[in-house]
Amino acid sequence: MAKPPIVFVLNGPNLNMLGLRQPKVYGRTTLADVEALCRRRAEELGLAVDFRQTNHEGELVGWIQEARKAAAGIVINAGAYTHTSVAILDALYSAEKPVIEVHVSNVFRRESFRHHSYVSPASTGVIVGCGPLGYALALEALADQIRGARRKAR
Amino acid sequence: MAKPPIVFVLNGPNLNMLGLRQPKVYGRTTLADVEALCRRRAEELGLAVDFRQTNHEGELVGWIQEARKAAAGIVINAGAYTHTSVAILDALYSAEKPVIEVHVSNVFRRESFRHHSYVSPASTGVIVGCGPLGYALALEALADQIRGARRKAR
Amino acid sequence: MAKPPIVFVLNGPNLNMLGLRQPKVYGRTTLADVEALCRRRAEELGLAVDFRQTNHEGELVGWIQEARKAAAGIVINAGAYTHTSVAILDALYSAEKPVIEVHVSNVFRRESFRHHSYVSPASTGVIVGCGPLGYALALEALADQIRGARRKAR
Amino acid sequence: MAKPPIVFVLNGPNLNMLGLRQPKVYGRTTLADVEALCRRRAEELGLAVDFRQTNHEGELVGWIQEARKAAAGIVINAGAYTHTSVAILDALYSAEKPVIEVHVSNVFRRESFRHHSYVSPASTGVIVGCGPLGYALALEALADQIRGARRKAR
Amino acid sequence: MAKPPIVFVLNGPNLNMLGLRQPKVYGRTTLADVEALCRRRAEELGLAVDFRQTNHEGELVGWIQEARKAAAGIVINAGAYTHTSVAILDALYSAEKPVIEVHVSNVFRRESFRHHSYVSPASTGVIVGCGPLGYALALEALADQIRGARRKAR
Amino acid sequence: MAKPPIVFVLNGPNLNMLGLRQPKVYGRTTLADVEALCRRRAEELGLAVDFRQTNHEGELVGWIQEARKAAAGIVINAGAYTHTSVAILDALYSAEKPVIEVHVSNVFRRESFRHHSYVSPASTGVIVGCGPLGYALALEALADQIRGARRKAR
Amino acid sequence: MAKPPIVFVLNGPNLNMLGLRQPKVYGRTTLADVEALCRRRAEELGLAVDFRQTNHEGELVGWIQEARKAAAGIVINAGAYTHTSVAILDALYSAEKPVIEVHVSNVFRRESFRHHSYVSPASTGVIVGCGPLGYALALEALADQIRGARRKAR
Amino acid sequence: MAKPPIVFVLNGPNLNMLGLRQPKVYGRTTLADVEALCRRRAEELGLAVDFRQTNHEGELVGWIQEARKAAAGIVINAGAYTHTSVAILDALYSAEKPVIEVHVSNVFRRESFRHHSYVSPASTGVIVGCGPLGYALALEALADQIRGARRKAR
Amino acid sequence: MAKPPIVFVLNGPNLNMLGLRQPKVYGRTTLADVEALCRRRAEELGLAVDFRQTNHEGELVGWIQEARKAAAGIVINAGAYTHTSVAILDALYSAEKPVIEVHVSNVFRRESFRHHSYVSPASTGVIVGCGPLGYALALEALADQIRGARRKAR
Amino acid sequence: MAKPPIVFVLNGPNLNMLGLRQPKVYGRTTLADVEALCRRRAEELGLAVDFRQTNHEGELVGWIQEARKAAAGIVINAGAYTHTSVAILDALYSAEKPVIEVHVSNVFRRESFRHHSYVSPASTGVIVGCGPLGYALALEALADQIRGARRKAR
Amino acid sequence: MAKPPIVFVLNGPNLNMLGLRQPKVYGRTTLADVEALCRRRAEELGLAVDFRQTNHEGELVGWIQEARKAAAGIVINAGAYTHTSVAILDALYSAEKPVIEVHVSNVFRRESFRHHSYVSPASTGVIVGCGPLGYALALEALADQIRGARRKAR
Amino acid sequence: MAKPPIVFVLNGPNLNMLGLRQPKVYGRTTLADVEALCRRRAEELGLAVDFRQTNHEGELVGWIQEARKAAAGIVINAGAYTHTSVAILDALYSAEKPVIEVHVSNVFRRESFRHHSYVSPASTGVIVGCGPLGYALALEALADQIRGARRKAR
Repeated sequence: MAKPPIVFVLNGPNLNMLGLRQPKVYGRTTLADVEALCRRRAEELGLAVDFRQTNHEGELVGWIQEARKAAAGIVINAGAYTHTSVAILDALYSAEKPVIEVHVSNVFRRESFRHHSYVSPASTGVIVGCGPLGYALALEALADQIRGARRKAR
Repeated sequence: MAKPPIVFVLNGPNLNMLGLRQPKVYGRTTLADVEALCRRRAEELGLAVDFRQTNHEGELVGWIQEARKAAAGIVINAGAYTHTSVAILDALYSAEKPVIEVHVSNVFRRESFRHHSYVSPASTGVIVGCGPLGYALALEALADQIRGARRKAR
Repeated sequence: MAKPPIVFVLNGPNLNMLGLRQPKVYGRTTLADVEALCRRRAEELGLAVDFRQTNHEGELVGWIQEARKAAAGIVINAGAYTHTSVAILDALYSAEKPVIEVHVSNVFRRESFRHHSYVSPASTGVIVGCGPLGYALALEALADQIRGARRKAR
Repeated sequence: MAKPPIVFVLNGPNLNMLGLRQPKVYGRTTLADVEALCRRRAEELGLAVDFRQTNHEGELVGWIQEARKAAAGIVINAGAYTHTSVAILDALYSAEKPVIEVHVSNVFRRESFRHHSYVSPASTGVIVGCGPLGYALALEALADQIRGARRKAR
Repeated sequence: MAKPPIVFVLNGPNLNMLGLRQPKVYGRTTLADVEALCRRRAEELGLAVDFRQTNHEGELVGWIQEARKAAAGIVINAGAYTHTSVAILDALYSAEKPVIEVHVSNVFRRESFRHHSYVSPASTGVIVGCGPLGYALALEALADQIRGARRKAR
Repeated sequence: MAKPPIVFVLNGPNLNMLGLRQPKVYGRTTLADVEALCRRRAEELGLAVDFRQTNHEGELVGWIQEARKAAAGIVINAGAYTHTSVAILDALYSAEKPVIEVHVSNVFRRESFRHHSYVSPASTGVIVGCGPLGYALALEALADQIRGARRKAR
Repeated sequence: MAKPPIVFVLNGPNLNMLGLRQPKVYGRTTLADVEALCRRRAEELGLAVDFRQTNHEGELVGWIQEARKAAAGIVINAGAYTHTSVAILDALYSAEKPVIEVHVSNVFRRESFRHHSYVSPASTGVIVGCGPLGYALALEALADQIRGARRKAR
Repeated sequence: MAKPPIVFVLNGPNLNMLGLRQPKVYGRTTLADVEALCRRRAEELGLAVDFRQTNHEGELVGWIQEARKAAAGIVINAGAYTHTSVAILDALYSAEKPVIEVHVSNVFRRESFRHHSYVSPASTGVIVGCGPLGYALALEALADQIRGARRKAR
Repeated sequence: MAKPPIVFVLNGPNLNMLGLRQPKVYGRTTLADVEALCRRRAEELGLAVDFRQTNHEGELVGWIQEARKAAAGIVINAGAYTHTSVAILDALYSAEKPVIEVHVSNVFRRESFRHHSYVSPASTGVIVGCGPLGYALALEALADQIRGARRKAR
Repeated sequence: MAKPPIVFVLNGPNLNMLGLRQPKVYGRTTLADVEALCRRRAEELGLAVDFRQTNHEGELVGWIQEARKAAAGIVINAGAYTHTSVAILDALYSAEKPVIEVHVSNVFRRESFRHHSYVSPASTGVIVGCGPLGYALALEALADQIRGARRKAR
Repeated sequence: MAKPPIVFVLNGPNLNMLGLRQPKVYGRTTLADVEALCRRRAEELGLAVDFRQTNHEGELVGWIQEARKAAAGIVINAGAYTHTSVAILDALYSAEKPVIEVHVSNVFRRESFRHHSYVSPASTGVIVGCGPLGYALALEALADQIRGARRKAR
Repeated sequence: MAKPPIVFVLNGPNLNMLGLRQPKVYGRTTLADVEALCRRRAEELGLAVDFRQTNHEGELVGWIQEARKAAAGIVINAGAYTHTSVAILDALYSAEKPVIEVHVSNVFRRESFRHHSYVSPASTGVIVGCGPLGYALALEALADQIRGARRKAR
């Protein structure tokens, strides 16, 4: 039986605090809960998940470069680096894989500097404000992209 | 057996041209295909869909007002009015229902005036660039919202 | 006895929801209450009121054009179109009648996009944040304008 | 018989020149005429008027602080300080009384720096471009506010 | 004999007031005069004209969509919607026909918000400030475009 | 027989390269072709053409000053100086003649610094994106202006 | 013999420190020296000088209002209020007298907030960076304006 | 024994209302409490305090000029004039003394017009949001500056 | 005896170079001197100091997360990340501890990009330009905050 | 007897039209009149004038370079190049001579693009809106500068 | 033996003053020295140099047009026109040759209007702040481009 | 024989992907090729190269601090951190060594956020768009700087 395609689910700074801090903004689901949710949905979709978190911009850049070879697609919640990191944008461009951007809270209801994302132009799709469920939706969107890409490649 | 909750799926100007125009930007799926997709996914989710399209800002406003009484939630792709209509923003605020905003294409890769949405601050979630599948994801996110709201109401 | 001059009291999108939605912003007075208040005050001022509401920008434009012939002046609460409609501005310029702009809430305490009005440069006076009473004050200001205009015309 | 509530009618720089300068912009009514008009309308409304004018920003600030104790509400035409004085804004916030802002001319038809008011966010209502009559309308709006505040206080 | 190609001449809000309002800005020619002028020039150019006016943005959008099938090209004076309507821009993009934009007055001599046009990027040519004659020139430019397009198509 | 009125057709920098460079933007018609086209259309319109090109801003300024005495009107394609030259604007204001501005390509589809023209406020009409034909249309518009000016002068 | 016309020479905040502070920016001439220089030059020009300084914006406003009756013209160095005072602008507009604005230092070489002056649009002439001599030049310019105004008035 | 150096502690508009108004923003400490706190801390630091408050910008300017001769340093809370007064900036530059700016509340959490200070570039240090204690810290910082300046002077 | 509360004193990029580089901007005190100063003042205030420096944004984020459990408050000089790091802002928000921001030099006298701080809105107080002493003042302000917080908690 | 120092009086584009065009803006004095006025005043001041005009930016640049050797100072009215020419700014910087900038009309009352001058930062003084007399005042200011420069050089 | 390819080294306004003016900004090397340096390096690289300087924008435009036929590549230091000339941009686009832009000083350390270059988007490479050596480096970069272009052409 | 001076050649995020990703933008040369090129050219110039790459901003900061002691100069291609890192700017300022900035692609032809560099103000020279050869040119420019610095130091 063919091995399921691997997708990277990459989480940026402070997402290790999910569910522990500011529950009014981010809810009470922890990152471990999110990981479990991702694994369940990935299995349904025939995908394998490599789930990671880091507070370091440079480490996120490295993981995205790694995805170029090791992954069929990327789900990324770059946290605060979403709004400030051109390095992540460049890494995503060079990954040449389908990318779905996720944010747990509705960034468009928050400070204006959160309305701009350097990740969005390098993403296929963007899912915002759907809470932890957003990760599951992102996996479904990514599976759809990967199927589409494979169909073209054939 | 309880009747399934009704959700409005509202489409703004030029979405009647979906699949007929600019396939590089919007793909080849027609609005009728989208409606069918919505009905299938809604059924799986235990929802009933009221699917509409109009080129008139005032008509969209009226439908959103109607949703206040007639619907459990709204999926809205306001098309070009997304970027220019304060009237739709106000209608959504007054609807006091969960709202998921959808865009078929990735607006963040297009002209800068498409990066701002008057719909987003009045929405719970925003799903962008996932193609027609985005409607299905929006319905799932909305179902999640409606369940959450019902749980609180109990 | 001379017929009282007719004034148009025109209301834009979502004002049909007045008193029904967001009472913290707009209070609990309905548009029907406002109409009754206008009729009482108009009678005291020797004016007749033609009171209308629409969610359609184009219909507002048409009514303002109609006022050119049919009305001695206009009280207008263009709702959200206040901030986005050059078409209403142009219609008001071409009406060549005294115009008083009204807003129920204090728009200057709200989002910055509500601080700019395309209606104001085409108005004689602007009355903001006085609640439903603002309509009555607008009628008094308009009566004063109409008397002034008639005096000049003699 | 109960003493009528005192309202401060405060006028800023150059309003002592009203009716004497630039009649095309401000008309021919003098500030003395405005004061008389205010007294007449106040009497009808059951209010007493304390009417003042100054060219000094600091003096306006002081009068507004005084109103905190001595007045039931404030009508203010801060003249040019409207557009430049954060000190007046702060004084109005600390007065914690209903405030109606008045401008004789339609500031929105004039230079763009007159379109912004530091007074408006600290005011309940704003009345612009209605000529000297604007003061009378402001008193009526203020009377309405004072009645509302008293009703709540009971 | 071959039927002449049909061109849509579409007019937006307030153009029904042409010649009736603000003659200093727009002159004294009425929209009926413009229509007659268009018919004469179209006949000379071997074109048939379908001449329409509406105050409704949504109706303009619908007519442009209709032109996709029914017309060989479009002359459009979108009036005030020129400056505010992304919906019209999108409709024009999806029409995939030659488009000439017309304005009777020189918009570049007027308020700065009239200097930007959402119609221009979707147009082949733009003719501004030439008065009613601008429509005739637009028809000639459009005839030239249609001939060019046909030549390529052969 | 009366001599035909002379009109200056003035061309700015790089227009001598027309048809030789960037054919995707400017087409393959040369400036000599444009001159011939202008002469034909001018003759039909009863005008004489003085057709010139220069790369020097100062020379354009001098020719416009000359037009004050020597010409009945000006057609001008100031090329790149359109976007940067206040000197040309001032010369056009002082010429006190009808002016039609022409651009071969649709500048509104190009870089944003090409969207602003210092020539437009000093022009009667502006014709953009109609290719070389734009010159012919400009001459027709200018002829119309000259006739109008003469009629008034009588 | 006729009394010489009186001109007000008005100085704003911190000009009492002239020659005492920051000699690199303002030089070593004191305000008393400037007054003496003004008196000498005024005598040559047949003018009488009323020379004043204040740190209070409101006092400057009052003096300008006074000039309306008491002076034939105004030389004003409003110091820092130049950049922040709409009240002074309004007072100057209402004075309806020739006004020459003076600055000792070249404000255009200093911080960008010093490049904008609210005084300039209400002035006939502006003299900047000529040091204390600028006052003398301003008096000559003002004398020229007063003669011009008297000639017209005859 | 040497007399302790005098420092001016200068307070701008509305600070006389400290502790009386908006306790959520400014707390419950009055200006008299602040003065007492300053006197205690100054004594510990070997300084004498001259503590003043005014609502008048011109008076603040005058006091700062006075400090040039009479004080060894300045602690200033210019209140709202912080954000609008170039005159105070100029006075501080000409005082040529160490200056510490204080704000009781954290201005960077409030409206954006409170984020800019004309006082800061003329200050040595800035202490924000530390409540009334900020004055005591400012005195300590000022004492440090004065000692440093004396050491250099020796 | 109770253990003194621990406060984190966190230093960002290039602060390890303090006293070694650009002495005109930052003085000659080294970071080791600052640490010693902090330890002395902390002891006086009954606090224990955990003093750290890093050039890595991600490490700063991690330390702030750690402070959530391990510290009673934070003094932070985020160096250049002050102006660019939303990640640090988010970490500070989630720490839910009193925070005092420090800068050795007066950032408001330097390049304009140094005038904005992402740290300030998440801080209680901000101390700028007081040199190394600023750290000591920050500790005093923090001690005051911690006492206040404990008093509330009782 | 020593030869009088030579000053260049340089005039930019369209100043050859002075007195011939737009008399409401520029008056009726011609450039020849200005030259005569300059010669008279220069003689009184002990200066010799070299008076020139050109429409070419490059020629102005060359003349300013020439002034480096041939002139003791420059009076310059760069006309429209004032607002657009960095080349003239650079030439003036490299001339290393006193420079007085002149404008006949009050540019601060005209279009906003005329409010900025590239000439001002390279000038000692700026004289605006004083009409042709401005040239005479400029010569007096320049004479004062030249005397000052010579005094320093001794 | 094949003739070496000719490259144009074009210099804009004020570069004839190089080494003569402002040595702190531009050093002491003259343009003649630069030309000699270019000839030496060109010979090493197998290139022939046509070295020119002009103060006229129009002449620069003409030379760039000439390069289209006569040169294999262009090194350009457009001096001040770098920041203001769209005409040069257009000429460079139409030259369709490799272009290297040079600036002697580091423009990014100077006034902000020098940070934008109209030349850069039309250049292959940009060399800034390397002093006169920058010309030699530019020739080497250009030689590399020319070789690359020839290789492709084969 | 004296040891050759060491220069650091520092590369930022994603430059390890050079030649592997987006060849249309960056070409096919790998970073290893660039290193070899640098070693060859350095040897010719009498320099030794320490060549490094990192994705971590903090590591780049550390290396630049190290260069203060260990290197005679720095060539830096900071990749995406060029546009976002004030920390690198500060490190470069404190290194007090000659710095040449390099970019392989012409950043001025790409997205506008790539047009601003925080590295440039801290660099001596900037070399952009010359491909991998840019590194060699940078080394030559740096050698020239180092020689110049040594000459001054003697």
